[in-house]
Amino acid sequence: MAQKIIIVGGVALGSKAACRFKRLEPRSQVTIIDQDRFVSYGGCGIPFYVSGDVSDVNDLRKTSFHMLRDEAFFRNCKDIEVLTQTRAERIDRENKKLHIRRLDGTTDVLDYDQLVLGTGSRPRCLMIPGADLPMVHTSANLNDAQAIKELVTRGQVERAVIIGGGFIGLEMAEALADMWEVDTTVVEYFDQIMPGFVGPQFARMAQRQMEKHGVRFFLDEEVKAIEGTDSVEAVVTSKRRLEADLVIIAIGATPNVELAREAGLRLGPTGAIAVDEHMRTSDPVIYSGGDCAEIRNLVTGQPGYFPLGSMANRQGRVIGTNLAGGSAEFRGAVGSFVVKTFEAALAGTGLSLERARRAGFDAVSVQVAQLDRAHFYPDKAMIHLELVVEKKSRRILGIQGFGEEGDAVVGRINMVAAMLEDRPTIDRLSNVELAYSPPFSSAMDVLNALANTAENMLDGHYQPIDADGFAEKWVNGNGNLLILDCRARQDGESFAKKYPDRWVNIPQDELRQRMAEIPTDKDLILICNTGVRSYEAQLNLREMGVTDPVSVQGGMVTLNKCGLDL
Amino acid sequence: MAQKIIIVGGVALGSKAACRFKRLEPRSQVTIIDQDRFVSYGGCGIPFYVSGDVSDVNDLRKTSFHMLRDEAFFRNCKDIEVLTQTRAERIDRENKKLHIRRLDGTTDVLDYDQLVLGTGSRPRCLMIPGADLPMVHTSANLNDAQAIKELVTRGQVERAVIIGGGFIGLEMAEALADMWEVDTTVVEYFDQIMPGFVGPQFARMAQRQMEKHGVRFFLDEEVKAIEGTDSVEAVVTSKRRLEADLVIIAIGATPNVELAREAGLRLGPTGAIAVDEHMRTSDPVIYSGGDCAEIRNLVTGQPGYFPLGSMANRQGRVIGTNLAGGSAEFRGAVGSFVVKTFEAALAGTGLSLERARRAGFDAVSVQVAQLDRAHFYPDKAMIHLELVVEKKSRRILGIQGFGEEGDAVVGRINMVAAMLEDRPTIDRLSNVELAYSPPFSSAMDVLNALANTAENMLDGHYQPIDADGFAEKWVNGNGNLLILDCRARQDGESFAKKYPDRWVNIPQDELRQRMAEIPTDKDLILICNTGVRSYEAQLNLREMGVTDPVSVQGGMVTLNKCGLDL
Repeated sequence: MAQKIIIVGGVALGSKAACRFKRLEPRSQVTIIDQDRFVSYGGCGIPFYVSGDVSDVNDLRKTSFHMLRDEAFFRNCKDIEVLTQTRAERIDRENKKLHIRRLDGTTDVLDYDQLVLGTGSRPRCLMIPGADLPMVHTSANLNDAQAIKELVTRGQVERAVIIGGGFIGLEMAEALADMWEVDTTVVEYFDQIMPGFVGPQFARMAQRQMEKHGVRFFLDEEVKAIEGTDSVEAVVTSKRRLEADLVIIAIGATPNVELAREAGLRLGPTGAIAVDEHMRTSDPVIYSGGDCAEIRNLVTGQPGYFPLGSMANRQGRVIGTNLAGGSAEFRGAVGSFVVKTFEAALAGTGLSLERARRAGFDAVSVQVAQLDRAHFYPDKAMIHLELVVEKKSRRILGIQGFGEEGDAVVGRINMVAAMLEDRPTIDRLSNVELAYSPPFSSAMDVLNALANTAENMLDGHYQPIDADGFAEKWVNGNGNLLILDCRARQDGESFAKKYPDRWVNIPQDELRQRMAEIPTDKDLILICNTGVRSYEAQLNLREMGVTDPVSVQGGMVTLNKCGLDL
Repeated sequence: MAQKIIIVGGVALGSKAACRFKRLEPRSQVTIIDQDRFVSYGGCGIPFYVSGDVSDVNDLRKTSFHMLRDEAFFRNCKDIEVLTQTRAERIDRENKKLHIRRLDGTTDVLDYDQLVLGTGSRPRCLMIPGADLPMVHTSANLNDAQAIKELVTRGQVERAVIIGGGFIGLEMAEALADMWEVDTTVVEYFDQIMPGFVGPQFARMAQRQMEKHGVRFFLDEEVKAIEGTDSVEAVVTSKRRLEADLVIIAIGATPNVELAREAGLRLGPTGAIAVDEHMRTSDPVIYSGGDCAEIRNLVTGQPGYFPLGSMANRQGRVIGTNLAGGSAEFRGAVGSFVVKTFEAALAGTGLSLERARRAGFDAVSVQVAQLDRAHFYPDKAMIHLELVVEKKSRRILGIQGFGEEGDAVVGRINMVAAMLEDRPTIDRLSNVELAYSPPFSSAMDVLNALANTAENMLDGHYQPIDADGFAEKWVNGNGNLLILDCRARQDGESFAKKYPDRWVNIPQDELRQRMAEIPTDKDLILICNTGVRSYEAQLNLREMGVTDPVSVQGGMVTLNKCGLDL
């Protein structure tokens, strides 16, 4: 009955699988093997250790009750053996044996009944000159973290360049710029940060937020070389040379699949280890999960790669259950994410518009801006949401959010994530039930309003234009452009004065009476503060036979956040 | 094509239905009739107006862009006619006519093509002597709000008694005690606050939180009379006499159904107006919703009564769509709620354990306490969650939460609310995907942990005892009781010293070695800080053949919050 379980890799998935299994089968023997000195740490916490939010690196290794999760912890609390600084070299599947090599060069062969591969991922490399110079780091493990922290603590970093504007790049940029006042530049290959995850406007909102705190961004630039002799001196991009005494490369993760591949286990189309819904590989006694495995994207139905600590933890528990004869399932992921950008949060789940279209959906998106709780309640913040919808079926494919009250943004995103697997349509979101009280939400919450707005657009009542569309017309528009500002006089009048040839202010409540003032030969754009009154005005105009005008979605608030200073 | 629509009641449902309809059919004529002076206000904001969070009563009547929603607003912005201080006296369904009476006594008869009843609710009355004395108020509308605010602003209230420990009672208690330092007492008929909505422990946590801020509570007491001559002087309960110069009665709402009943419209088993999924009454050209109508409880499948402003708003939009020939649906409610109690929030969705059992489910519940984000992240707070599960099917019936970071609590509750309609089982919650980053959630979030804990309990691995169960044993336990404290020495040792005959401290990581110290003839209760180590210890003991011990769910943290000062 008692089994021998070997787990290769003990960071998130491996240690979780081990602990869960031991709770179910305490008499079985579990061995965790890891090539590093450290196991079972919160790798996602590294940027917060660098920033100083987490003062001691060991805090990332501790339980919530402050016990260090080292070899002794696993032995005494969990009755699990941990072999650190030990490499798994080869799996002999036929004989169920694992060949290992210790740091001192000695080797051994271990028997297993069942095996778990939690070999994780490594940072993607840049194949450019200088990438191996001292002071060029990734942010992959606690060794990197300690090295970077030591540099900044000793004041040895004045200028940092971060290559990559994804999660880790942004988190590291905030860590360096905020706490250590390092002159920090992010270089991104694509023309926006968080490419693929959010649309261009939301990316720009987060970027602006970080720029306010001194982080500099260069988008649409390829890094060509890292220069330096004894240490890094500069980063050379396709457009400029950036002096730097620290470079952090954060351009994504590559699954560690060598051990699995050499053992003949099936890899999937993403290049990661293929597993079924029970997290079982093509060998029925070998499980895998976490950063080295691929899982189903529950929105597209296709294999996906989601290297995230939270995934690994949940998958680890599923594996632990199944090692003990259970049949727990991990059906896949909808792809939720969040990144803190100083006071704000940028979050999402499911597909961005771009990814939806690349996946073959005939998709559209719509944005709203609304306060996160009752507008009469004193503490409140604006939430910007973008909903991605399949046109014909009205199915929700994804949602992205940005706002300065992080928990409020994340709360809305998580609600959609909770139902996304069921392929909800917008009418479901239109009536989704948030716990309501003025300090926590609006009677018609921003999430309900978002679905309603999508419905209005799909039904042809609402013709929105986004910030980029507006900017394009504003910059390139010929003399025919006319902005009809539907806000109250105290808000709109100054704009009408500033741009007398292209801006008129007619408050929405005066629109019916002043319809004659509206020229019929103009390229009309309606705007208000958040988009509510300009939508109303659009309907008013349509009633009067003016059918062309578009309405700026998210209004002036959105234009401002996107950096359009009118 | 153009219709005449009459809407009776213009607070939340009525004005929303009117506006939505007018956007779809601008050429139709809409008239709102309301007996009050005010329409379209945020009634849920009244306690926050009384508290001073909202300084001007008109802020509750304004749009998010600061326009007062009065008759002129509806006329100019919406092209909707509003008749205030006008009563709808009788519906002549056969001839589609509404008989109305104005404040000046004049009457009129209005034609309608379709009619909407948004007659709302009124506060339930107390049929006791003195209930009609001056200074005895409810918190039903802006008139009450202004009267109460004036009294406290003028410093005329020293002692207030609030009858009823539900949402409004608690919000009004906070308003009076916090801002105005009124000596405030809440009297509740049942033996806990928020009866029916949350279990006894979570009720006590919220109560304790309010007691810390000076609010006094008397539970399990019936109010017998209100004493006074010119004004209120005291409230007499079944157990005591409480002096008071202000009394607020907040014991729930009764739907205003007289108009509907007299017109022969069908009422449902709750006593409110029966409507179908399109919010249509038994007369196909009459719609109803909001506080005067009943809707389906999506968890029980039975008719339910949910008088809440957010419901009314969403239902209003559905009605507006359907008045214009659409077929929008409002399927029902899962029953989400939240109440702010000073810094904390008490929230939930679906059924409490008590309501689940009353509805005929063979239900159990389990509690966890866990930090709301990565434990190594500096800003974090404890979240307490209770999950109500149908035993056999493992279906989730409800969840309640309490914690000091309100948005974080509400965020978790809302996630469950989003899927509750689909009758999820605990394995769905076990893998539900929260957007993960250390500043926002844990790699294994409290919501995942809650489902895992429920699974462990149902699978027989985890034998929890709640705070009341512990208290009962602690107080009444004979000499056989032994608390095995699995925390580290610095936490557990002082308790072992204080209660040498019934408390031993063996840290969980020493348990395997010190198993001999554990007496086998004792009534053993395992405890740690939040319940994680005591669960592990329970499994360790079971492995050694000790199968009886129970583990305190939510640990010391929960006992403390429930007011058990050990």
